[in-house]
Amino acid sequence: MTLKLYELVGSDAARPFSPFCWRTRMALAHKGLTADSIPWRFTEKAAIAPHGSEKVPVLLHGEKAIVDSWVIANYLEDAFPDRPSLFGGEGGRAVMRMLNWWGDITVVGGIFPFIVADIPAQLGEVDAAYFRSSREARFGKPLEEVTAARDKGVIAFRKSLDPLRLTLKTQPYLGGNNANYADYIMFGGFQWARAVSPFRLLEADDPVHAWRERLLDAFDGLARNSPGFAL
Amino acid sequence: MTLKLYELVGSDAARPFSPFCWRTRMALAHKGLTADSIPWRFTEKAAIAPHGSEKVPVLLHGEKAIVDSWVIANYLEDAFPDRPSLFGGEGGRAVMRMLNWWGDITVVGGIFPFIVADIPAQLGEVDAAYFRSSREARFGKPLEEVTAARDKGVIAFRKSLDPLRLTLKTQPYLGGNNANYADYIMFGGFQWARAVSPFRLLEADDPVHAWRERLLDAFDGLARNSPGFAL
Repeated sequence: MTLKLYELVGSDAARPFSPFCWRTRMALAHKGLTADSIPWRFTEKAAIAPHGSEKVPVLLHGEKAIVDSWVIANYLEDAFPDRPSLFGGEGGRAVMRMLNWWGDITVVGGIFPFIVADIPAQLGEVDAAYFRSSREARFGKPLEEVTAARDKGVIAFRKSLDPLRLTLKTQPYLGGNNANYADYIMFGGFQWARAVSPFRLLEADDPVHAWRERLLDAFDGLARNSPGFAL
Repeated sequence: MTLKLYELVGSDAARPFSPFCWRTRMALAHKGLTADSIPWRFTEKAAIAPHGSEKVPVLLHGEKAIVDSWVIANYLEDAFPDRPSLFGGEGGRAVMRMLNWWGDITVVGGIFPFIVADIPAQLGEVDAAYFRSSREARFGKPLEEVTAARDKGVIAFRKSLDPLRLTLKTQPYLGGNNANYADYIMFGGFQWARAVSPFRLLEADDPVHAWRERLLDAFDGLARNSPGFAL
């Protein structure tokens, strides 16, 4: 059965940028699986509505549609048990639920205000208008105002990564000696930023920076070879 | 071989209160092990120096001394592999390193300013003087000033627990259907607060409150039966 993955893109169909789609991309690679990519844009709600979702990633496995990056990771772990494990056992799967929330809040939520004003430039006209109006409603101000404070805001963001940073001082990956899904949860946010914004999130001597470099190189440079800004 | 655990206490030798010692207490119970408790006070550095530590918990297993709650958890997992697992596999062990840092920073570090001024009352005279002077040097102000802002500070603290809270909306424990060491990491901080301070950290309708209740009841009420303030 073939795998197909709806992935968020903008005007360049070969530049996927959703942090959640990148979690799934890395998880597929970890399992040694390839999926046909189906480029999807913000305003193409109709394309995925039949699969029961308003957001990507949506994974199609034969007739089955799997929605939400966390659900997809669990699905891949169970449907391909003989491939390398994403969770490293049931304890890993259970406690990774909290790391997934931490990644959503601290990494994705932390980065968003720094890069949000850079995103419209990556989008076609219709998507850019949709993105700007929906996100300006959410923030309650123009995107450029949200992003204006990023040079100051990034200091607190870097500090908020301490639980990740301190872990990486004694092991190369959250997964231990090798990356597992916990790493892809966090990495997805950094790869999202790299795809859409030139803003420098990490300092060069940060252990988180070195860890990001290793994940950019993983799977023959899957992430590094995807279009993005210099880091 | 017998197990012995140095545990931080104050004037009541039967009221252990260190968040890190409580992680170990819960881990021992999870493994179905009992350790003889050796009450230890802040200024009794000489008692544990021979074991290569300045802090508790220190676990003695026969001739061996194991220092630091995280190291102890790993030791117990490896020395008693046939007992219930603390980590649920190697993936759990690896990614729990980050949850341990999150617990140190967000839970223990988050709670400390709210309860620090309540701690001297639990200590004998010599320990109270040592605690006050060393912690006032760390905070750069009187302990009562640190704690004065707690009614306001607790709002941000509660919000900082979102990764824990959101996880508990879909599973009863961080460990899944049953508690594992990830739960004890976080619970240790709450039990510490309960032992030394009447300050109300959680609202009654918070899923974190319900989770704490379940852990207070675990192992025949091990934590609830230990002296503490009403919650």
